[in-house]
Amino acid sequence: MLDPVLARIDADLPAAMDRLSDLLKIPSISTDPAYAAECTKAADWLVRDLETIGISADARQTPGHPMVVGHGGEGGRHLLFYGHYDVQPVDPLDLWDHDPFDPRVEGGQIRARGAADDKGQLMTFVEACRAWKATHGNLPCRLTFLFEGEEESGSPSLIPFLKDNADELRAELALICDTGMFDPQTPAITTMLRGLLGEEITITGPSRDLHSGSYGGAAINPARVLARILASLHDDTGRITVPGFYDGVTELDPSVKAQWDQLPFDANAFLGDVGLSVPAGEQDRTPLEMIWSRPTCEINGMTSGYTGDGFKTVLPSKASAKISFRLVGQQDPFKIRDSFRKLVRDALPADCSVEFKDHGAGPASSMDISDPAFEAARQALSDEWPNEAAFVGAGGSIPIAGYFGDYLGMTALLAGFGRDDDRIHSPNEKYDVESFHKGIRSWARILAALSN
Amino acid sequence: MLDPVLARIDADLPAAMDRLSDLLKIPSISTDPAYAAECTKAADWLVRDLETIGISADARQTPGHPMVVGHGGEGGRHLLFYGHYDVQPVDPLDLWDHDPFDPRVEGGQIRARGAADDKGQLMTFVEACRAWKATHGNLPCRLTFLFEGEEESGSPSLIPFLKDNADELRAELALICDTGMFDPQTPAITTMLRGLLGEEITITGPSRDLHSGSYGGAAINPARVLARILASLHDDTGRITVPGFYDGVTELDPSVKAQWDQLPFDANAFLGDVGLSVPAGEQDRTPLEMIWSRPTCEINGMTSGYTGDGFKTVLPSKASAKISFRLVGQQDPFKIRDSFRKLVRDALPADCSVEFKDHGAGPASSMDISDPAFEAARQALSDEWPNEAAFVGAGGSIPIAGYFGDYLGMTALLAGFGRDDDRIHSPNEKYDVESFHKGIRSWARILAALSN
Repeated sequence: MLDPVLARIDADLPAAMDRLSDLLKIPSISTDPAYAAECTKAADWLVRDLETIGISADARQTPGHPMVVGHGGEGGRHLLFYGHYDVQPVDPLDLWDHDPFDPRVEGGQIRARGAADDKGQLMTFVEACRAWKATHGNLPCRLTFLFEGEEESGSPSLIPFLKDNADELRAELALICDTGMFDPQTPAITTMLRGLLGEEITITGPSRDLHSGSYGGAAINPARVLARILASLHDDTGRITVPGFYDGVTELDPSVKAQWDQLPFDANAFLGDVGLSVPAGEQDRTPLEMIWSRPTCEINGMTSGYTGDGFKTVLPSKASAKISFRLVGQQDPFKIRDSFRKLVRDALPADCSVEFKDHGAGPASSMDISDPAFEAARQALSDEWPNEAAFVGAGGSIPIAGYFGDYLGMTALLAGFGRDDDRIHSPNEKYDVESFHKGIRSWARILAALSN
Repeated sequence: MLDPVLARIDADLPAAMDRLSDLLKIPSISTDPAYAAECTKAADWLVRDLETIGISADARQTPGHPMVVGHGGEGGRHLLFYGHYDVQPVDPLDLWDHDPFDPRVEGGQIRARGAADDKGQLMTFVEACRAWKATHGNLPCRLTFLFEGEEESGSPSLIPFLKDNADELRAELALICDTGMFDPQTPAITTMLRGLLGEEITITGPSRDLHSGSYGGAAINPARVLARILASLHDDTGRITVPGFYDGVTELDPSVKAQWDQLPFDANAFLGDVGLSVPAGEQDRTPLEMIWSRPTCEINGMTSGYTGDGFKTVLPSKASAKISFRLVGQQDPFKIRDSFRKLVRDALPADCSVEFKDHGAGPASSMDISDPAFEAARQALSDEWPNEAAFVGAGGSIPIAGYFGDYLGMTALLAGFGRDDDRIHSPNEKYDVESFHKGIRSWARILAALSN
């Protein structure tokens, strides 16, 4: 069943690249209202494309951008495939080598905004289905498609849509193509995703900026208060001091840890690429544990007083910081938020007040790899690529995986073909032609493995 | 001798206000090269005005804006009077109630940029001389005038000019009119000025901004390093921890402290005006000591990572802060700078580097009030105003007072009539007509007291 499909994929690659190029030409930037019509255009393009492979699809209105939903095929395991057709903004435009919506293929790379995130990735799955249909006259199993248009702007319509259409969308397994390879030779299924708690604190001392000559010494300085609070969030060994923070942090399963220890991960190169040499986290953890399975607390931004050129002897009225916590296991983001806010309030001296801004709270998610589909998919990926596929963690958060569990009771299998140098969210985003081509072949193999 | 001069001052007030208004109309913003010709215009205006009272004056070229130098009078004590004719920029212009260079007199206030800082103040002395000359036909004693045009832009030409013209400018005592009253009823001679050390530190960790999901936990975060360093600069009791920092800090003379304790200083109002209630400095010091005679360390600004609206999970490459130290007694700013930089370097973890930017280093200055001129001037001021005049400290720095000591071997007597609400350096700067009128009368009294 599989070999003719793979042959068809190889033969059809130029046409598949043309189709992807058509989709990449649509500037479907979801966060900017000026591009709303373009988002609808991208959704409509996908509806038409799905219809060419025998999927009955339509674009459903939401308070934001449309959701594309499609159904087709029959028999076998019922799979839902998720991708997103919206893209990040393109500024600063002058850092692009070319128009981000005029796709180029050069040096084995497809260059355009969205090439890797996520149009190129979602089309790997569509093209695999197309080749299957062309070869065998039907799809390999019952398939549901869900393409979102708000992933890059916080997915405001997603949870209500999942709730309202749970019966229609629920399948046996979700497939998501929005992640990367472990390295260009080693495919990966992402089975652990860290959660995220985002908090912004603004401490106010004096009611206005003061002259540090006139008031310095007698007036409380909120920048000093903030610095003390931020400095208190870690102890000398790098552990986070927020009370109860480690509740629910689980130790890595020994078999997973053994597998991670086998991965060709070069910590020196990983850190050396960004000018560092020493893993900075808890000293009894490996670097992969630090970024995949251990929780963190990071200052993402801070500002107070005068930050321009030169010097102003201002004693600032306000000081603020943006702080994020990456969460693992069963850590409860809401409990941690409460505990963090209490820590900050308890640390405030007289005359200081604090305001909190909530920037999201989502728990970690961990896929149940005891489902035999995971091992089957891992084998299928291993067949396509030079190295054996790995079950990996991811430091970042992909909320959709958790939502499928929470609202549709469905496990998600995350496989993707992005590379670390794809420059997603940055100028000159690209997707390797090899990622696209072997990504399509990978999905054909996974479909073959999962559909019977 | 004095009474007819005071009467003449009262009678001439409308004309004196017109003259001040003419000077205020000239937008002599020293920091902006676009206003260079206006600075020259203001200097020339002063030369002509000094000439009308029998002073031989000229505008001397410098690499920056001109210095106005004048000589006149004879006999008695040789006094040098210093003021500055340049003004601060006016932006944000939309916060002004009217054109800052179209002076208005409303509600007993002269409103314009420079009304208080320093055109109105310097003209109090010129008008006192004018009245003396009109009444007695001559000036009260030998007088030298020095008007600077770069005070608001760091006085780059001042020290070379003082050095090159030391013999010409040296007098027995310098008078400076660029400070304020203790309160609207209580005149002040400022005899202690804190010094200032300004430092900017920039800590670099990763060579570029990173995604905190991908790197968080394994990569050092320079914002966290900076926060720890800033938090370590004070101990729990508010003392500054920089090694050797308190070397040279002298205790206040008991007689001066007794005088300060008598001042009608309302710490509750001082702090309450800016939304505070508790003096935040060393707890065994009075609020006036905190701001006048104790050294400080303040964070004037800090920035790192993403500081815009919303949230970005960036792990920043850099974090920086601007820090100033107010110095007293014989504290050595250069030793403190070295010690501070060593503290920062010693606190850096692996993979972090630091860059320092020097934003000036000047010691405190303290006037020798054993010179009988100080007590004589204090009596003269007390005769003019409702309350007895006070010898006060000032939290801010007025480098010129130190320069007169260092380069001309001359003590400076700082008397001025500004009020806390004059909004110098801010929109809607004003100078009370009473400050101007009684300021002129005050100088007439001081001249009468010092000239014989």
